[in-house]
Amino acid sequence: MNVTVRGHRRHYRTVTFDAASNSVQLIEQRLLPHEFRIVATTDFRETARAIKDMVVRGAGAIGATAAYGLAQGARAFRGRSLTAFSSHVESVCQTLKHARPTAVDPVNAMVRVRACMRAGSTVEERQTLALAAAEEFANEDVRHCEQIGKEGLRLIRNGVRILTHCNAGWLAFVDVGSATAPLYAAQARGRRFHVFCDETRPRSQGATLTAWELAQQGISHQIIADNAAGHLMQRGEIDLVIVGSDRTLGRTGEVANKIGTYTKAVLAKRHGIPFYVAIPLSTIDWNLKRGVDIPIEERNEAEVLGAWGVRLNLKSEISNSKSRYVRVANPTSGARNPGFDVTPSELITGIITPAGIFRPRELWSRRRRLGWNGKSDGQ
Amino acid sequence: MNVTVRGHRRHYRTVTFDAASNSVQLIEQRLLPHEFRIVATTDFRETARAIKDMVVRGAGAIGATAAYGLAQGARAFRGRSLTAFSSHVESVCQTLKHARPTAVDPVNAMVRVRACMRAGSTVEERQTLALAAAEEFANEDVRHCEQIGKEGLRLIRNGVRILTHCNAGWLAFVDVGSATAPLYAAQARGRRFHVFCDETRPRSQGATLTAWELAQQGISHQIIADNAAGHLMQRGEIDLVIVGSDRTLGRTGEVANKIGTYTKAVLAKRHGIPFYVAIPLSTIDWNLKRGVDIPIEERNEAEVLGAWGVRLNLKSEISNSKSRYVRVANPTSGARNPGFDVTPSELITGIITPAGIFRPRELWSRRRRLGWNGKSDGQ
Repeated sequence: MNVTVRGHRRHYRTVTFDAASNSVQLIEQRLLPHEFRIVATTDFRETARAIKDMVVRGAGAIGATAAYGLAQGARAFRGRSLTAFSSHVESVCQTLKHARPTAVDPVNAMVRVRACMRAGSTVEERQTLALAAAEEFANEDVRHCEQIGKEGLRLIRNGVRILTHCNAGWLAFVDVGSATAPLYAAQARGRRFHVFCDETRPRSQGATLTAWELAQQGISHQIIADNAAGHLMQRGEIDLVIVGSDRTLGRTGEVANKIGTYTKAVLAKRHGIPFYVAIPLSTIDWNLKRGVDIPIEERNEAEVLGAWGVRLNLKSEISNSKSRYVRVANPTSGARNPGFDVTPSELITGIITPAGIFRPRELWSRRRRLGWNGKSDGQ
Repeated sequence: MNVTVRGHRRHYRTVTFDAASNSVQLIEQRLLPHEFRIVATTDFRETARAIKDMVVRGAGAIGATAAYGLAQGARAFRGRSLTAFSSHVESVCQTLKHARPTAVDPVNAMVRVRACMRAGSTVEERQTLALAAAEEFANEDVRHCEQIGKEGLRLIRNGVRILTHCNAGWLAFVDVGSATAPLYAAQARGRRFHVFCDETRPRSQGATLTAWELAQQGISHQIIADNAAGHLMQRGEIDLVIVGSDRTLGRTGEVANKIGTYTKAVLAKRHGIPFYVAIPLSTIDWNLKRGVDIPIEERNEAEVLGAWGVRLNLKSEISNSKSRYVRVANPTSGARNPGFDVTPSELITGIITPAGIFRPRELWSRRRRLGWNGKSDGQ
C-alpha cells in the first residue's frame, strides 16, 4: 500500500527479495507505528529469526518470507550434488517452519516452492526455480488479497461500524491485507464507515499496526481496549466483525487466529452481529481434522507483563526514540501467554476467500475451487 | 492486610483518617506495584481529586474515602450557622459524588454520614458525628468483607482455578476485599488453589494491584491478557470466576463493574463455569430500575493509547524510578474508553454478600436483610 514517509508517498510491499544480494527485505514491523524502516536478512537463519522475533508477522507475510527464505537458503548452497542439496533444503525448511509453529502459511508456501524446484534437474536450475516460485507465491498473495477485497466489498455498506482484532492488514500479508481488503476496496469506492480496532494485547498489533494502516489510508477509526468490544456490542455500536486467520481448517471450518478472536466471536454470536473471517487460500489447512490439535504457541511471559511504547515529550509529540519495553505488572508475578485461540465454525457467519464468501462448513465441499491439491500437505 | 515494606511486615488499611490534621491517609495506588507509599489529602477537594485521579480506587475504598472526605469537608467549616453549614455540606457532597459517576458507594456512604449528622443540633456536634459516621462506614466495610470471605469460602475447594478481573481486593476496599475475601479466607484454612488475574486493560489493575496483593499473601497466581480467558476456558483450565462490582442493582441483579466483566460473564456462561460477584451491601443500588440507565464513565483516551510501567535494568530488576507513561498506539489515532460495563443477571450464578450468597434476582426479595432502607437513597 502507499505510505507517507518523511513527506514522500510511495508504494511498499511488506516483503520483497533482492536477488543480487540474496537478501530478504522486510518492513521492520516492531518499529511501527513510531518509525518506518526496511531491514534486510542475508541468511535463511536470520530470516527465520526475523519471523520468530516478529520483525515480520501475519499469515501471508510470514508465508512469503518463508518462501523467500527457502529460496535464499537454496541459493546459498555451494556444490553440485542433488542429494546434498536436498538435505540442505530440508534443513532450511525445518528451520523456517519452526519459527512460528501455529501458522500454516509458511508450511504451505514452502511445500509450493519445493514442488516447483523438483522440475529442475541440476542444483542451479532448482535454485532458479526456488526464487521464481517464491516470487509467484508473493504475487499470488497480493492477487488473493485484492480478490478478498472484491468479494468482501458488499459487506461494507455506508455507515457500517466494523470491529477488527489484531492486524490482518497489508502489513500481515505482502500487500492489501485480508480483513482490511474489503475496507480498502470500499474506501476506493467512496464509501464511509468506521472501524474499532481492538488494541490486541499483549503485543498491541491493533493499536500499533492496524491503527497505523488505517491512519495512513485516511479511514475513520478508534482504538479500544480488548475489554470494551462487549460493551459496545451491547450498546448497538458495532454492526460487523472482520478478522483474519493464521490457520483455517478446511475440513471443519475452525479458525485459529490471534488470542482473543474466539472471545469476540462468542460476543458477536450473542448479539447477532455477523462475524467474518477473511483468508487467502494459503491459510487453509486441508489435513488437520480437529481444531483442538492445532498447536497453540505459548509465548514469552514478558509480553503480558509489560508493554512497548515511546516516551512523550511535554508537547505530547512523539520522541524519535525507539519503542522501549516497560514492565507494567507486579515484579514478583508471572504470566501465561497463549498466542492464539481456535474459533469453532458455529460462531462464524462466513469465510471471505478470494474465490467467494462461504459458510465455514462449506469449505470442504468447495475444496477443489479453494486450491486443495488432493493430498497431504507435508505436515 | 499485611504488607512487607522494606523487610518489615505490618498491617495497613487502604484509607484511614487523621483527626488532628483533618487529613485522609491513602495508599497511593498508582505507585503500586513498584512503590508502596501513604499520601495525605488535607482538603475535601483534594480528596475528591484523589478519587477522580485514582490515587484510591475500588468500590469500598472510594466509599470510605468519600465518607472521610465529607467528614473532612464538614470539619473544615468555620461558623455556627446550621443553614450555611448545610449548604457547605451539600457542596462537599456534590464535589465528592462527581469524582466517579458510575460508582454507588460514595453516594451511599455520604447518605449514611449525612443521616447520622442530622442527630446533632449544632455545627460542632454535626462535625463530630460526621467523623464518627465515616469511621463506622469504614469499619463496617471491613466487617462486610470479612463476612463475604466466610460466605464465599465454600466455593474455594482445593485445587480450584479461579479467574479474577480488575482489582476487587483489599486495595479496592478498606481491608480484605470482596472478590479476594473468599481467597484469603480459604488460604487461612490452608486450602490450595490457583488464580488467573486478567491484566484488565487499560489501567491494568489486575496485573498491578491484584497480582501484587496475591504475591504479598503468597497465593499461587498468573497474569493473563484479557484476551486469553476465553481460550483457557475452552481448554478447561478455569473452574470459577469471581469479580467485584461498582454498582449492583437491587431490583434487577444487574452488575456494573470494570470494562470487560460482561465479556467474561458471557464466556463463563458458554462454558458452564460458575460466575460469582462479591459485594458489600453498600454497593447495592436499590433505586435504579434498569442497568442501561447506569451512567458509564468515558475516561481519557490516553489510558487506551498507552501504558504505565517502569524500566528494567539489564539484570531484569526493577528500577527505583516511578512508573511512567509510554505511548503504545499509533500517534495519529484516537480511542474510545468506556470504564465500565453492565452484566445482566442471567449470566450471574450468584452474588456473594455479607448476608449470604443469592441469585441476582433474589436480591430484591431479600432486601430487608440486605440493608434496604425502604426509601430513595438520594440519587
